[in-house]
Amino acid sequence: MKLGFVSAILPDLSLREVVEFASEAGYSCVELMCWPKGKAERRYAGVTHIDVTNFGRRDAAVVRKLLASAGVSISALGYYPNFLTPDRDEAKRVLAHFKKVIRAAALLEVGRVTTFLGRDWTKSVEENWPRFLKVWTPLVAFAAQREVRIGIENCPMLFTGDEWPGGKNLAHSPRIWRRMFEDIPSEYFGLNYDPSHLVWQHIDYIKPLWEFRDRIHHAHAKDVRVDRERLDDVGILGTPLQYHSPKLPGLGEVNWGRFLSVLGDIGYSGPVCVEVEDRAYEGSLAMRKAALRQSARFLMQYIP
Amino acid sequence: MKLGFVSAILPDLSLREVVEFASEAGYSCVELMCWPKGKAERRYAGVTHIDVTNFGRRDAAVVRKLLASAGVSISALGYYPNFLTPDRDEAKRVLAHFKKVIRAAALLEVGRVTTFLGRDWTKSVEENWPRFLKVWTPLVAFAAQREVRIGIENCPMLFTGDEWPGGKNLAHSPRIWRRMFEDIPSEYFGLNYDPSHLVWQHIDYIKPLWEFRDRIHHAHAKDVRVDRERLDDVGILGTPLQYHSPKLPGLGEVNWGRFLSVLGDIGYSGPVCVEVEDRAYEGSLAMRKAALRQSARFLMQYIP
Amino acid sequence: MKLGFVSAILPDLSLREVVEFASEAGYSCVELMCWPKGKAERRYAGVTHIDVTNFGRRDAAVVRKLLASAGVSISALGYYPNFLTPDRDEAKRVLAHFKKVIRAAALLEVGRVTTFLGRDWTKSVEENWPRFLKVWTPLVAFAAQREVRIGIENCPMLFTGDEWPGGKNLAHSPRIWRRMFEDIPSEYFGLNYDPSHLVWQHIDYIKPLWEFRDRIHHAHAKDVRVDRERLDDVGILGTPLQYHSPKLPGLGEVNWGRFLSVLGDIGYSGPVCVEVEDRAYEGSLAMRKAALRQSARFLMQYIP
Amino acid sequence: MKLGFVSAILPDLSLREVVEFASEAGYSCVELMCWPKGKAERRYAGVTHIDVTNFGRRDAAVVRKLLASAGVSISALGYYPNFLTPDRDEAKRVLAHFKKVIRAAALLEVGRVTTFLGRDWTKSVEENWPRFLKVWTPLVAFAAQREVRIGIENCPMLFTGDEWPGGKNLAHSPRIWRRMFEDIPSEYFGLNYDPSHLVWQHIDYIKPLWEFRDRIHHAHAKDVRVDRERLDDVGILGTPLQYHSPKLPGLGEVNWGRFLSVLGDIGYSGPVCVEVEDRAYEGSLAMRKAALRQSARFLMQYIP
Amino acid sequence: MKLGFVSAILPDLSLREVVEFASEAGYSCVELMCWPKGKAERRYAGVTHIDVTNFGRRDAAVVRKLLASAGVSISALGYYPNFLTPDRDEAKRVLAHFKKVIRAAALLEVGRVTTFLGRDWTKSVEENWPRFLKVWTPLVAFAAQREVRIGIENCPMLFTGDEWPGGKNLAHSPRIWRRMFEDIPSEYFGLNYDPSHLVWQHIDYIKPLWEFRDRIHHAHAKDVRVDRERLDDVGILGTPLQYHSPKLPGLGEVNWGRFLSVLGDIGYSGPVCVEVEDRAYEGSLAMRKAALRQSARFLMQYIP
Amino acid sequence: MKLGFVSAILPDLSLREVVEFASEAGYSCVELMCWPKGKAERRYAGVTHIDVTNFGRRDAAVVRKLLASAGVSISALGYYPNFLTPDRDEAKRVLAHFKKVIRAAALLEVGRVTTFLGRDWTKSVEENWPRFLKVWTPLVAFAAQREVRIGIENCPMLFTGDEWPGGKNLAHSPRIWRRMFEDIPSEYFGLNYDPSHLVWQHIDYIKPLWEFRDRIHHAHAKDVRVDRERLDDVGILGTPLQYHSPKLPGLGEVNWGRFLSVLGDIGYSGPVCVEVEDRAYEGSLAMRKAALRQSARFLMQYIP
Repeated sequence: MKLGFVSAILPDLSLREVVEFASEAGYSCVELMCWPKGKAERRYAGVTHIDVTNFGRRDAAVVRKLLASAGVSISALGYYPNFLTPDRDEAKRVLAHFKKVIRAAALLEVGRVTTFLGRDWTKSVEENWPRFLKVWTPLVAFAAQREVRIGIENCPMLFTGDEWPGGKNLAHSPRIWRRMFEDIPSEYFGLNYDPSHLVWQHIDYIKPLWEFRDRIHHAHAKDVRVDRERLDDVGILGTPLQYHSPKLPGLGEVNWGRFLSVLGDIGYSGPVCVEVEDRAYEGSLAMRKAALRQSARFLMQYIP
Repeated sequence: MKLGFVSAILPDLSLREVVEFASEAGYSCVELMCWPKGKAERRYAGVTHIDVTNFGRRDAAVVRKLLASAGVSISALGYYPNFLTPDRDEAKRVLAHFKKVIRAAALLEVGRVTTFLGRDWTKSVEENWPRFLKVWTPLVAFAAQREVRIGIENCPMLFTGDEWPGGKNLAHSPRIWRRMFEDIPSEYFGLNYDPSHLVWQHIDYIKPLWEFRDRIHHAHAKDVRVDRERLDDVGILGTPLQYHSPKLPGLGEVNWGRFLSVLGDIGYSGPVCVEVEDRAYEGSLAMRKAALRQSARFLMQYIP
Repeated sequence: MKLGFVSAILPDLSLREVVEFASEAGYSCVELMCWPKGKAERRYAGVTHIDVTNFGRRDAAVVRKLLASAGVSISALGYYPNFLTPDRDEAKRVLAHFKKVIRAAALLEVGRVTTFLGRDWTKSVEENWPRFLKVWTPLVAFAAQREVRIGIENCPMLFTGDEWPGGKNLAHSPRIWRRMFEDIPSEYFGLNYDPSHLVWQHIDYIKPLWEFRDRIHHAHAKDVRVDRERLDDVGILGTPLQYHSPKLPGLGEVNWGRFLSVLGDIGYSGPVCVEVEDRAYEGSLAMRKAALRQSARFLMQYIP
Repeated sequence: MKLGFVSAILPDLSLREVVEFASEAGYSCVELMCWPKGKAERRYAGVTHIDVTNFGRRDAAVVRKLLASAGVSISALGYYPNFLTPDRDEAKRVLAHFKKVIRAAALLEVGRVTTFLGRDWTKSVEENWPRFLKVWTPLVAFAAQREVRIGIENCPMLFTGDEWPGGKNLAHSPRIWRRMFEDIPSEYFGLNYDPSHLVWQHIDYIKPLWEFRDRIHHAHAKDVRVDRERLDDVGILGTPLQYHSPKLPGLGEVNWGRFLSVLGDIGYSGPVCVEVEDRAYEGSLAMRKAALRQSARFLMQYIP
Repeated sequence: MKLGFVSAILPDLSLREVVEFASEAGYSCVELMCWPKGKAERRYAGVTHIDVTNFGRRDAAVVRKLLASAGVSISALGYYPNFLTPDRDEAKRVLAHFKKVIRAAALLEVGRVTTFLGRDWTKSVEENWPRFLKVWTPLVAFAAQREVRIGIENCPMLFTGDEWPGGKNLAHSPRIWRRMFEDIPSEYFGLNYDPSHLVWQHIDYIKPLWEFRDRIHHAHAKDVRVDRERLDDVGILGTPLQYHSPKLPGLGEVNWGRFLSVLGDIGYSGPVCVEVEDRAYEGSLAMRKAALRQSARFLMQYIP
Repeated sequence: MKLGFVSAILPDLSLREVVEFASEAGYSCVELMCWPKGKAERRYAGVTHIDVTNFGRRDAAVVRKLLASAGVSISALGYYPNFLTPDRDEAKRVLAHFKKVIRAAALLEVGRVTTFLGRDWTKSVEENWPRFLKVWTPLVAFAAQREVRIGIENCPMLFTGDEWPGGKNLAHSPRIWRRMFEDIPSEYFGLNYDPSHLVWQHIDYIKPLWEFRDRIHHAHAKDVRVDRERLDDVGILGTPLQYHSPKLPGLGEVNWGRFLSVLGDIGYSGPVCVEVEDRAYEGSLAMRKAALRQSARFLMQYIP
């Protein structure tokens, strides 16, 4: 396994600075954010460390040289919009942009992109399914042609009343993953596995590793703390941030020793990227960098 | 405490038969269903053991004599419609009928009715709140005038996709109860406390007994089993019946010894009514009666 | 479900006395032991409540009348020898006798017999398998022809050094059951499910109920207590009675509420027979009867 | 084992009434209180069901006849004063009275008395020990001569600030029992084992059964509930009633199935007497009787 | 948060050496002991890294320069005597000395001192309270005037028979803290929060962080191991060191990931000082230094 | 304690390379494998970092100089054959070789060798015992004469069907250790304590540290993960590798903080050697080295 981080937490740094920091802080890879340039639509979104808009061979060569010189690799190109948003114009735009991300990944010989499935959050999984198939069947084929694997993060994208009730990403449970892969069986279609989202959904985050061992294309290292006292007040029908908090690895419920133990035993040798979304560490760039350093110290006990 | 049962499980028996069975099976009280005569709108609804439509003093005398002769009392009159349904005509009808239930409770000197708050299940708690206040403030006053206490059952009324996402009863968590009682502080407004609904919401079902000790006007004895393997497949964002099953007391997760231990210590001496909604016991009238006998054997270990 | 008991614990009573005791103690069925007359070969074996040697229609009629008059039914005819013993003469004798048990079950219209698979305890499962298939394939066919279902008890028959290392019954784990039913798929071949043997094998005794729901032909209600301090001294490589003790239901580790909850939910409505093998209750006939009465009181909380 | 109760909870009943109630409620023995007539010095003390002051052979005959006719036996004569009180006059009085209790037990052929060791609660265990030895060495000899076994209850007699810090009974932990029996090794000196007092002391209440198997002369069936929220507020240095409540069997933390399972396996066949000290059941004589009936229903699942 | 250590474990080093070691071992602050010069009255006491007796501006400048040059800060000045000792002369002396510590903290612009409340250990909390108020009300005012915050460590100071029964520091439980802050509400009066003392008191060490978030002026990182086997022998009424052992962080029961996770979420950004009181690491200065290095390695996983 | 590793995992490195790697990777000692040169008989066996065949004073001087220059010490010489194999010729050979290992340990002034007891795996412990005594009584005397302590690893050497049923090493449980040390009480005879083998045997791996504190001559740091789902399928009568996997420290069930906490408190200050047998890290020499580096990072949190 290779320890990396998600570049979204360092929006104020240039690509060069991100890569240099990675190298210095002991990270061997980075998941680089590729949002279209412009205003972020939500927290942790809208970061552009590689601008894929007119990304060509020469740009690729520059980026690859930069990374090689720092001894850091790209784990994946990341872009996490809502492909199934009710706003059909937006849906078209994000689809087009995502294809550019895929093309850039191919040019960079990264071979891996990360994203969400999206969801019309006002509708049930069932109601979203036909549109999901319509959008994603050709999209997976597009990526497969370019030999780029897609890792869908298993985050429900449901935090507060804004995304209530369904959240903005269908791919949140093992039952749904099974259905995804039955309906679109391409080996290029897989998961960006993040155990933290399973914790607060009260789903065993170890067991699915065995079943989906061939579908884990990327992994995120984020943690969450479920506060029993808060949960006792609102219950699971409350909105998720009422009872849990995203935290750095080691500051939450995930048993990282066990998780990485099984991850290794299923033969996974890909990237494990720290995703910092811990409000206690977001006060300044210095704190966000400290969060990444602390996470590396913690995870390096369990990673070769 | 007095052991009773909810009469909804015996729709095929007359009031006399219900009462005689209660007596013979060792129950000392019954919560009598008072739905309007007609077709049931859902499972366990639509049962009429007392027809409150034109219920007068004479009817009350007949019922009271019947019960006295069997040595069985009425724990409450029960009617559990959706007061906040988007169908405004239906909302009017159920409100009118509920007032009759209250009047009957007063005539019968029972002093207690049981129901739900209702909810427009397509809307958030926040969006439902103004209408809740509008409907319930005068309704509680109406009951208070007649010295009839209302016990709101804490069931989310969310089982399958039909009630998704919000369920048909607002009163499902301690945080919401606190708000209810702050906004409508009448002592006639309280809970029909059923621990089973808290279990699958992952809410401690003991702790709220201390805080809401003065608001527990009635109690249900139902149990649930959460199947970890099923929950691991769909998570808490699945629909609740995908991962839990309502069961008889003793066949689920509730620690009845502890629950009744604390219920006694907060000074509760009212009815504890078995509510049978266990599909394994619904094959025949004989099975449903057997369910009630078994539940009595189980609970009598913990109840004086 | 019907509460019964295994008659082996009452060897000093005649069939009539067994049946009368069952009736009086609140049991609705009995699993009747059908060992050949003669000396018991081990504790709890060698009991003959029905002598199947020359058992004919008339005998069947007598027995059925006796049971009918007491309102007690036969859950199964039981005979638990070692079909795969290295002593080939003994193996022949027990096979012949078991066929008589099957015939008697057919004549009595009981339709159910209970036994073990047997095992050459000095050999591995793998080494025993060919002989198992050779003996059992025709035996299951023999029973199927007579419409008699066979319930194989899942006891490893490994207690002390005498049965070391393999025990005298192959059918001890879910993996082995799966293989049994794949190799001999007849619906007449199933389990006599006893949760207690799974407890000390550290196997979840609930989970297999779902997978093997169609194979549960009979059930035993026995419990065990694992003594952690004793286990800490010898470990699982010690002989099983060094760290666990068979006990009456309620005096061990089995969560009977949960076990019977799921047993009901998978649609099982057959017998649940108390098997008394608790040394603390074996001092006298009076104690053994008391054990059965106590077990009935305990289990009747969870059984209709 | 024989199910009994401690008569202290029925001070308003005569001996005859106590015995008749025992018989009717399904109890087979009673621990009879033998305080000197007069005012109770604390809750549950001062009850006199047998007045031992001038108790002679004829009195014994009357009592024994009364019990025989009801089919109820005496488990022990009980008197629980503070033998080591700083008030030396009181200490003399209670010692003299206790000798009369022992004599009465001999006359009644009960052979068993129950009490405390006592303690000067303002002093440490160490400081109390010399006086303990001085008082108890001859006292045990006195009982041994009359073949009366003494069962010392393992209650710390520390509830509120009044008994702070040491409590009024030295015999509260396994380490102290070991020392007691090393210093006074008579087989007539043993324990009246009550698991509930060990629960709130955070001592395993099962493990000592094995070590002290020959010293268990009597047993009490009382339960306690430790309220985690209350304990979290004051900690174990708070006074015990700040964080626990004595409760009826089944309404507390004791795992009665396991406790009685091991109690049986160590060969104990003596009395198990319900001791009611549950405030939720003390409102009236009817409630106290109901408490005893409920306790019998609960315990009869685990006792032959 | 800033990682530091309590200087008491290095009594053989000069201030300069302490500071240099801190810097080299990766610590960013130190809590400096300020006992009066002379003989230690108990283990870990009597250490003087800053002599506050005649401490003036010039001394302050020297110390500050020394620290600045090493890049290490002072977390607090510490002095932990018994302000409420029955020896009134001693009480006067310690009060006078503590005022000097406060003055020194002001001169050094540290703004923080750490200590105990003290207690007459032979008396109850209640009996100590009037004297506590009399001593501490003006003392807190004295500190407030100088803008120095006081962090009271929550150690019961009860280890062996010597401090029995009450211990030498009142401030040991959340209930007592609440009362302290209600009676002396100054914001300069707060806690030096050490989770380890709550562990063996069986108090949740996370929950109070939320309630007392504004009162946490300093924190200690010490751990304890509770040995269940030892506790089972003596119970909570034994003296605390009979069942627990103070240990380095990571070698005990504290879940440091969770503790520091919540500590961060309540907004705490102050010092977290390792307090070494682990007998396994006290054999030599080298071992005590190794203990501090090991603790830093352990804690740096969870601290930025 | 001194952190080391077992050299068996680096068979492709020369002694010099092993020692240099140890030094560079932060290890302070190494357990050096001393198998006779030749083919390995099983995984992790057959490694020869010191060839003891004709090992003399001069060889010892060379080795010691090599180690001294790297600042690394030898924790023990290791050789783990089966002394009690049914192949008597082999038994003679291994005995003779082991004596050479002991002699080499004496020459090197290491004073410690590590091995197994051996076992005829087809026979019970009881049946092996006489031969164990015959072989080991003189062998221990031989070592004692040379002041070399023997540490017997507590591995059952039972993994798959090949070693079924008994495994190839008798010394697997506390009960057996007790018997070993009673029958051969020499202080030179002790344990090479590895907690991981106790985990899957369901034996507390902390408790024996107290009882056998004087017998722990060496310790291994290996971990195991028990996969509950796999255990649920085969139970403890399955072969051990069906339900558990050896893993690096931190990737399994062992609570290293607690284990090393108690190991320190019993006064152990010897070597703790990482034994890498984790299949996920065996792909290449680079991975095996990475495994050792990771293990050091993990364990250094808990070791001085």
